[in-house]
Amino acid sequence: MIYDISMPINKDIQVYKNAEDKKPIIEASFDYTRSDVYESTLTMNLHTGTHLDYPLHMVRNGKTSDIENLENLITKVKVFDVSFETDHIGLNTIKELDIKESDFVLFKTKNSFLETFISDFVYLDFEAAMYLEKLQIKGVGIDGLGIERAQKDHPTHKALLGNDIIIIEGLRLKDIKEGMYQMICLPLKITGVEANPARVILMD
Amino acid sequence: MIYDISMPINKDIQVYKNAEDKKPIIEASFDYTRSDVYESTLTMNLHTGTHLDYPLHMVRNGKTSDIENLENLITKVKVFDVSFETDHIGLNTIKELDIKESDFVLFKTKNSFLETFISDFVYLDFEAAMYLEKLQIKGVGIDGLGIERAQKDHPTHKALLGNDIIIIEGLRLKDIKEGMYQMICLPLKITGVEANPARVILMD
Repeated sequence: MIYDISMPINKDIQVYKNAEDKKPIIEASFDYTRSDVYESTLTMNLHTGTHLDYPLHMVRNGKTSDIENLENLITKVKVFDVSFETDHIGLNTIKELDIKESDFVLFKTKNSFLETFISDFVYLDFEAAMYLEKLQIKGVGIDGLGIERAQKDHPTHKALLGNDIIIIEGLRLKDIKEGMYQMICLPLKITGVEANPARVILMD
Repeated sequence: MIYDISMPINKDIQVYKNAEDKKPIIEASFDYTRSDVYESTLTMNLHTGTHLDYPLHMVRNGKTSDIENLENLITKVKVFDVSFETDHIGLNTIKELDIKESDFVLFKTKNSFLETFISDFVYLDFEAAMYLEKLQIKGVGIDGLGIERAQKDHPTHKALLGNDIIIIEGLRLKDIKEGMYQMICLPLKITGVEANPARVILMD
């Protein structure tokens, strides 16, 4: 069974802060009124939809997509259902979860049930991020378009990205039950960038 | 072992006919001179780099990416080394290959060894495409940026797309030996379009 946990990309996709410049533009470069082929061009912020963040996104002179290691993106993952959280995932919650070194964890929150962007989406707070960093997990995915909101100085991003922990944002986990899965996360292969759109699936 | 058979996407990528409008543009929307985050925006023709074609690309009112079925993109594939061909893959060659109904086949040609676009890249001719169509294969991948050149009326595309045979273009097979592999092809999830950029890997 294949579970597609990626956001569909089209003009109706929810985007961070509903910012116009994050909405994808898909335009016909050729169509059948003036050509015998049809071709589209996409213009899209790399943080639109399901995507990976790399350190440069939040760290000056940080590393880029060139550090990508597919072995870490084709991996067992633990999906935790924390959809009871109304504001954020904090230390108290995360300490109770079965998370170990080298795990890749995905958090299913109430964000997965929203089709439109809300400014108080559930995020991962700094203390919880530090806890994950100390455990030396491999990566973390969440169903918000940000792993934190607009916290001053972006401490959650920096705790994770500063320690080469992979961040996947914009997952869709509504139909996924808590448990262990095989994840295949294949980002576009744009080199030298601070983020890459990705298609992400889970398998039993 | 994971073999990445996708083209790196950056300003130096080879594009069809070296057309300026097919070169990707990756621009910083935010950088550290004016923000505390870094974000890029990509502008790219959907046929740049490794990608899937859908019928609408060559068939008026044809089907779009909405027909995608991931079960057909995560599949065993047969890689055939036909790098001895200097011009095209024709019926005589293809009849000698072990291709059966429901196979997904990838053709490794001399295209895989080229880093720049040449107009006489190796293509799949109409007779060979018809042969594959009659066999009712699942899909075909090639290492050229087109599965045919600019043949009048695009008969190869139409023979395949008109019969819902998946086409992957722009593969990189230089390092792949002939044989059977597990393929994972995950396209972006842009809905309603005639093509989607994809990340494609093979595993033993």
